[in-house]
Amino acid sequence: MSTTFIHGGTVICPTGSQQLDVLVDGGTIAALLTPGSTALGADLAADADVTIDATGKYVIPGGVDGHTHMEMPFGGTFASDTFETGTRAAAHGGTTTIVDFVVQNPGMRVQDTVARWHDKARGNCAIDYGFHQIIGGVDDESLKGMAELVSEGITSFKLFMAYPGVFYSTDGQILRAMQEAADLGALLMMHAENGIAIDVLVEQALAQGHTSPYYHGTSRPWQLEEEATHRAIMLADLTKAPLYVVHVSAKQALAQIAEARGRDQNVFAETCPQYLYLSLEEQLGAPGFEGAKWVCSTPLRARAEGHQDELWRYIRTGDVASVATDHCPFCMTDQKEMGIGDFSKIPNGIGSVEHRMDLMFQGVVEGKISKESWVDICCTNPARTFGMYPRKGTISPGADADIVVYDPNGHTSIGIDKTHHMNLDYSAYEGFEIDGHVDTVLSRGRVIVDDNTYLGSRGHGEFVKRGLAQNLI
Amino acid sequence: MSTTFIHGGTVICPTGSQQLDVLVDGGTIAALLTPGSTALGADLAADADVTIDATGKYVIPGGVDGHTHMEMPFGGTFASDTFETGTRAAAHGGTTTIVDFVVQNPGMRVQDTVARWHDKARGNCAIDYGFHQIIGGVDDESLKGMAELVSEGITSFKLFMAYPGVFYSTDGQILRAMQEAADLGALLMMHAENGIAIDVLVEQALAQGHTSPYYHGTSRPWQLEEEATHRAIMLADLTKAPLYVVHVSAKQALAQIAEARGRDQNVFAETCPQYLYLSLEEQLGAPGFEGAKWVCSTPLRARAEGHQDELWRYIRTGDVASVATDHCPFCMTDQKEMGIGDFSKIPNGIGSVEHRMDLMFQGVVEGKISKESWVDICCTNPARTFGMYPRKGTISPGADADIVVYDPNGHTSIGIDKTHHMNLDYSAYEGFEIDGHVDTVLSRGRVIVDDNTYLGSRGHGEFVKRGLAQNLI
Amino acid sequence: MSTTFIHGGTVICPTGSQQLDVLVDGGTIAALLTPGSTALGADLAADADVTIDATGKYVIPGGVDGHTHMEMPFGGTFASDTFETGTRAAAHGGTTTIVDFVVQNPGMRVQDTVARWHDKARGNCAIDYGFHQIIGGVDDESLKGMAELVSEGITSFKLFMAYPGVFYSTDGQILRAMQEAADLGALLMMHAENGIAIDVLVEQALAQGHTSPYYHGTSRPWQLEEEATHRAIMLADLTKAPLYVVHVSAKQALAQIAEARGRDQNVFAETCPQYLYLSLEEQLGAPGFEGAKWVCSTPLRARAEGHQDELWRYIRTGDVASVATDHCPFCMTDQKEMGIGDFSKIPNGIGSVEHRMDLMFQGVVEGKISKESWVDICCTNPARTFGMYPRKGTISPGADADIVVYDPNGHTSIGIDKTHHMNLDYSAYEGFEIDGHVDTVLSRGRVIVDDNTYLGSRGHGEFVKRGLAQNLI
Amino acid sequence: MSTTFIHGGTVICPTGSQQLDVLVDGGTIAALLTPGSTALGADLAADADVTIDATGKYVIPGGVDGHTHMEMPFGGTFASDTFETGTRAAAHGGTTTIVDFVVQNPGMRVQDTVARWHDKARGNCAIDYGFHQIIGGVDDESLKGMAELVSEGITSFKLFMAYPGVFYSTDGQILRAMQEAADLGALLMMHAENGIAIDVLVEQALAQGHTSPYYHGTSRPWQLEEEATHRAIMLADLTKAPLYVVHVSAKQALAQIAEARGRDQNVFAETCPQYLYLSLEEQLGAPGFEGAKWVCSTPLRARAEGHQDELWRYIRTGDVASVATDHCPFCMTDQKEMGIGDFSKIPNGIGSVEHRMDLMFQGVVEGKISKESWVDICCTNPARTFGMYPRKGTISPGADADIVVYDPNGHTSIGIDKTHHMNLDYSAYEGFEIDGHVDTVLSRGRVIVDDNTYLGSRGHGEFVKRGLAQNLI
Repeated sequence: MSTTFIHGGTVICPTGSQQLDVLVDGGTIAALLTPGSTALGADLAADADVTIDATGKYVIPGGVDGHTHMEMPFGGTFASDTFETGTRAAAHGGTTTIVDFVVQNPGMRVQDTVARWHDKARGNCAIDYGFHQIIGGVDDESLKGMAELVSEGITSFKLFMAYPGVFYSTDGQILRAMQEAADLGALLMMHAENGIAIDVLVEQALAQGHTSPYYHGTSRPWQLEEEATHRAIMLADLTKAPLYVVHVSAKQALAQIAEARGRDQNVFAETCPQYLYLSLEEQLGAPGFEGAKWVCSTPLRARAEGHQDELWRYIRTGDVASVATDHCPFCMTDQKEMGIGDFSKIPNGIGSVEHRMDLMFQGVVEGKISKESWVDICCTNPARTFGMYPRKGTISPGADADIVVYDPNGHTSIGIDKTHHMNLDYSAYEGFEIDGHVDTVLSRGRVIVDDNTYLGSRGHGEFVKRGLAQNLI
Repeated sequence: MSTTFIHGGTVICPTGSQQLDVLVDGGTIAALLTPGSTALGADLAADADVTIDATGKYVIPGGVDGHTHMEMPFGGTFASDTFETGTRAAAHGGTTTIVDFVVQNPGMRVQDTVARWHDKARGNCAIDYGFHQIIGGVDDESLKGMAELVSEGITSFKLFMAYPGVFYSTDGQILRAMQEAADLGALLMMHAENGIAIDVLVEQALAQGHTSPYYHGTSRPWQLEEEATHRAIMLADLTKAPLYVVHVSAKQALAQIAEARGRDQNVFAETCPQYLYLSLEEQLGAPGFEGAKWVCSTPLRARAEGHQDELWRYIRTGDVASVATDHCPFCMTDQKEMGIGDFSKIPNGIGSVEHRMDLMFQGVVEGKISKESWVDICCTNPARTFGMYPRKGTISPGADADIVVYDPNGHTSIGIDKTHHMNLDYSAYEGFEIDGHVDTVLSRGRVIVDDNTYLGSRGHGEFVKRGLAQNLI
Repeated sequence: MSTTFIHGGTVICPTGSQQLDVLVDGGTIAALLTPGSTALGADLAADADVTIDATGKYVIPGGVDGHTHMEMPFGGTFASDTFETGTRAAAHGGTTTIVDFVVQNPGMRVQDTVARWHDKARGNCAIDYGFHQIIGGVDDESLKGMAELVSEGITSFKLFMAYPGVFYSTDGQILRAMQEAADLGALLMMHAENGIAIDVLVEQALAQGHTSPYYHGTSRPWQLEEEATHRAIMLADLTKAPLYVVHVSAKQALAQIAEARGRDQNVFAETCPQYLYLSLEEQLGAPGFEGAKWVCSTPLRARAEGHQDELWRYIRTGDVASVATDHCPFCMTDQKEMGIGDFSKIPNGIGSVEHRMDLMFQGVVEGKISKESWVDICCTNPARTFGMYPRKGTISPGADADIVVYDPNGHTSIGIDKTHHMNLDYSAYEGFEIDGHVDTVLSRGRVIVDDNTYLGSRGHGEFVKRGLAQNLI
Repeated sequence: MSTTFIHGGTVICPTGSQQLDVLVDGGTIAALLTPGSTALGADLAADADVTIDATGKYVIPGGVDGHTHMEMPFGGTFASDTFETGTRAAAHGGTTTIVDFVVQNPGMRVQDTVARWHDKARGNCAIDYGFHQIIGGVDDESLKGMAELVSEGITSFKLFMAYPGVFYSTDGQILRAMQEAADLGALLMMHAENGIAIDVLVEQALAQGHTSPYYHGTSRPWQLEEEATHRAIMLADLTKAPLYVVHVSAKQALAQIAEARGRDQNVFAETCPQYLYLSLEEQLGAPGFEGAKWVCSTPLRARAEGHQDELWRYIRTGDVASVATDHCPFCMTDQKEMGIGDFSKIPNGIGSVEHRMDLMFQGVVEGKISKESWVDICCTNPARTFGMYPRKGTISPGADADIVVYDPNGHTSIGIDKTHHMNLDYSAYEGFEIDGHVDTVLSRGRVIVDDNTYLGSRGHGEFVKRGLAQNLI
């Protein structure tokens, strides 16, 4: 096995930053060392097979994106990134682990759906991947399957309070799944929007001729996210299940989560770059059908109501556990276009698996969060939340050598004709400029991206058997 | 310089725990290594001058006690531990850094008081030490001195809302000191009790013949701690000074701090083991004059009101930044006895610098906090808060080799005739049994305690120049 | 028309109490007068057809019980009080107006159900009565009926988040009904318990052999009341419908309501004497099947959790709009007994229409509320909330002469063999002693109860066409 | 004694409005009657000495202004309205009772200061008046005097947390005064601003050359009002004294009060029209020295921060007990001008005793509050809070015939050349237009203002001996 020596850089972890050298041995980190130490009696730089000079740069754990939907079936079409294209794009952006969602619908055996997802991913990924399990049909059978999945490293289960007739679970089903999750110690993930009420609003909007993408947002008002979030919290309080609320976009929903956390309840919030940067007025309200690019659920929120600023604040206060992408790309052509004249037919999703690390670093540049917090919410805490720490999410001996050398003095321009490796015919962040750059990316010791060049290979990425959440209180 | 190799143990840091070997080179940690890794081409265990087998044990950063008062002058007497005896006791208990308080009274130059404290500590300490500066007399002169102290590594300044005529600052003085602290980026520490109102209650209690130690507690009701805490928070909000509230004992005061933190304000709470374990009813209310042992301010709170449980909860929710001891021992004989017949004359203080790491570990044993949280609030976060990270508070290359090998299967009995190295004629925790044990303690690479034997030396401990707080939001 | 002169008493209204004489002319109050005033040039006491000496007594508006279920169909049986027996019992207890619930089930025209309820009540009542409309089947038809009902004086509409398959509305149905209510300015009343989740818990309890009445309580935990209450509040916030939450028993649910009111939202809380006086442990947990007497939903709550004390507090803070009875009596024999061996088959309901004024006065005696608050929550504010003020709920010229002379020095013993005029074979308050007494009751100027003697007549009571709520903010 | 019959109007009380006739006999209300009732066997309209046709108009209790400072000494000058001019202006505006502040400074006997104020007011007032007692020097003597004052009808005592060296009380003095107030059941009124900290900010502002009126506002930031409010609340919680916080202007201070009220504490908030209508930016920030007109403490707050809107909201939620004027007029010429070049020398105060009822009615017109709430916060609740109910603050038999006939279709223009009877050379509300008009004002049965004509007389007003607060919870 070959060795790699990364020297001169500043290693960032959630509690602080230090100049440290990193010795990689094969796929794992072998040692962290004081720069220039001779205690080991070896000239590591000279002895290593590969040396990387990280002087003046940050050395951070590879990004962990806890929420992706590669080639997900949705409304008769599929998310446009396959595991191959999506993970390659992720790699370019400094993300070295994704956790993707296996989809189960009523009547399917969850074990069968897992097998299908393994088939899709195996041999195709540029980076490592794990699975969450969506349970669209909670019943005795699927509940029983949960224990088996946990033993196979799939330790988190997602339910939907939205999408009646598709993924929707009743409160009774949620209660039962939470009881099971609590017994197993497994994480219950929740899409928290009151889908039953939303469907009425959608129907009313369409009946009034409000068919453009903007009305996707207005028919999913914050009250229905806040409500569902609170409901999930109470059901979790009752059952003692650890709860992870995905893609929180409303400040009021986050306030509910913060309050529950203050009560000492195991509730975790995920938000996504789109909710921190984009808005109802500016993006969803773009002229014509343009807004369709940003149709996702929960929807982008009104900047005039201050959601974006509040979400940044909740990152600072530690109430956001993870920033993931909810990467679920659909092209405008043929896909998003299905909803011309009827916003409810627009496939829901935004693709940004490639840009998360950069977008969040821009928050560091702009003084919104510290660089330690950046690493925490993008790498370390997702790894802990999803039971992969310290294998993932930390620069630490014994950990997988998933490492990003990030240049805080570099620059990245986002745009369809610039940095863009996702299989998506537009960029949700077209024109965004980032004051930083992903220089080098290692996945299990192998350099897979260097200086914008892809050096990885399809199939390098392996399935990660995950344990239970490691940050429960 | 000699090397030490600690192998087989579980290294604990705030984000998680891992089996790692630690190589110490001279006074600092040279490397963290995967157990058994051969990447370095050396048999570290064989090559090291000293090897410590930590198999089955925890390897944690030496404790950082951010609040001690060695040989502090108080009411005509002195705290009974000198820097020599106090730091030796601390070492026995796994604490390798203290931050002690320099005392300035009106009319004194702060620089002069610092010099005096350096004189007291230099050449006497078993472990490293830093200083906070008490400013008992805020005026143009002392305010000007703050910048100089910061440049000398004294980066935190404590004011008192209690003790009128002794250390008390008016709100105007507080405001000015906070403005200065904000300009410097320095931490403003606060003893938050409304001393003006307390003095009235004390006088009334004594006038009613309520002279026993119990009335020390009742004349300092939670309302007057909560009030002062809120006041300090608002003044800090106005001036943007980072605020650290010392020895919080009332749940309502902690609620105020938690609320401010939720608003994104830099407010940090310290609590102490006495407020987590002891109570108004049981200790202060002990028969006769016995309660004097536990006379300290803020006072022990009523268990019936649930303060102790709530304080543990606030540790879990992350709203407590640090658990320190407020070590300020006074013997019963000749010292505490000064207050027989008048509780207000009892010297305020409890000695426990030796027991903090054990007492807090017992919280891990009893399921109140995780072992990661234990390390965080006793070691890592105090180091960050007081600007000593990563030199102190972490097991990391480049850090000082202040390391404790802690045996989670060991046992420690606390009592005056058992473990007790403080210069104090009673133990505040007499009879407490701890399900863990401090096996070995290293200070800057030197083993200073091993198997209950003191191997250190007076004067080994050095002054730590501290930087600014590293966990501001 | 005859005149009645009530003199010497203390008239109580929500803002204060005064010694005033009251002149009744026919069915209404003609004048309030300063005692002994000669300004009117008439000796009113001599001229009046009837004089009532209220010296030393309270003269209060007749009670308004906003929540009764006379002869309500439930699970194959009927609430045991008819309009005749129930209103006669109410009269004995100083209640002169009830608002009863018309029941609509899916498929029925609401107008038809109203007609049926008019048939039941007309000609049978001892006191005046109004109707709320239960909409068990929200659809286009029933929604359209709401406007018609409002014009006929039925201005409040109750939905259920509990009882799936019986009265349950989905969140979509609730949303639509609230939109309609908001348009009409009508009150949306809500039974706020998450019935979908409760049904799972009930099924699980029974499967575990937990069949006794106590488990009725434990299978309806406070979380599921708090949750539904919050959900209703958010849906009301979204639609701007005024919301009235019936029979709140959990302190956490009331906290949600108080918070919404603090935000300036039109949310009103009703509680009932049973939630203020009785508990899960003492009553529902009575030996054998005894607890069935107190099976009602929401359930009695655990006294150990402090619900009862908190509910009294929320009356004091003004966050409880109304204390009603939710009178829905079922006899033990043949009715409650249906649930022997299966608590879920016990008809839900407690009968106390007769005792509300006395029970709440006991709160005055015990210093929990003021006598002005007593009148407010039992008479005035219910009248305002349900659009009957000033016809009902106040001692004021022009108002209906519904008047109670209450003796604060009298005494009332509650018990099946004592004061008990309800058609119910047990008393939920057996053995309660009240330090006050209903001396005389007038309904529209006619004395219907005097000195425990019933002087009224079947059919005296008339339907009250109600207006919209008069206390919206 | 003569009789007056007011017929055809709508009588408004806090719980509702009704068409009622009012019979006045001498100085008190003799009866309220159903319009047109013949039950009394008399043609009241014909028999009365005076009849007032109030058809289409509101009949409301005379306004109770609980906070005025007539001819108050301040900084070497006196508030420009005497009891004569000030009460006459009040009468024009529909206010029939004021409660003015007796001023005690250290060393004075409170009884002596009361005597002096009686001398000033006796024989000079157009309307009735009561007194609060300012205790500027809390000591054994003045505390002892409190009981005597209560027995003489002065039942509220005001302390200052602002104005060190003038009225300022230490927290110890506050504590002692609150203990005494709690014993007596008397109201403790508080000017809640942290004057010690403010003085530092004022000094700093002046040192920086910030001398214009605008800096009066910025040197009294909301944090220092919120802080003092919270402090007063905690001291009141500790002592159980009922607390009334005067002239609240910061939304955060009101939030503290609302929270305390929600905890069931007897805390009452007063605000003033200036805080509801005027702002830091618009008025205090007027060009040149113009802003001096609106220099008062607490200061006007920034509209950009939303204080004004939030204060209206807190009226709606019932958390504001009273709207008073804090009438304390100083002319620009010779008085306000004292502060040219140094805002701290501008006499603090705004005159508006004449406009309160109109300004608050405009809130009704604009839909911010109901007309019932208008009467409650301007008349009824102040009367209750200050122990004058039902003599003042209500249209009720037995009450003083202090009655205003208010025309909701009338119009009032405020301005120095229009409606303006105060002895003040400017109007703080110049140019304000009110959609309503004070038509007729009765004080104890006598018409003192009719159609803008003053018919009253100096010395008609009498001292009102007040009782304890009547709205404690």
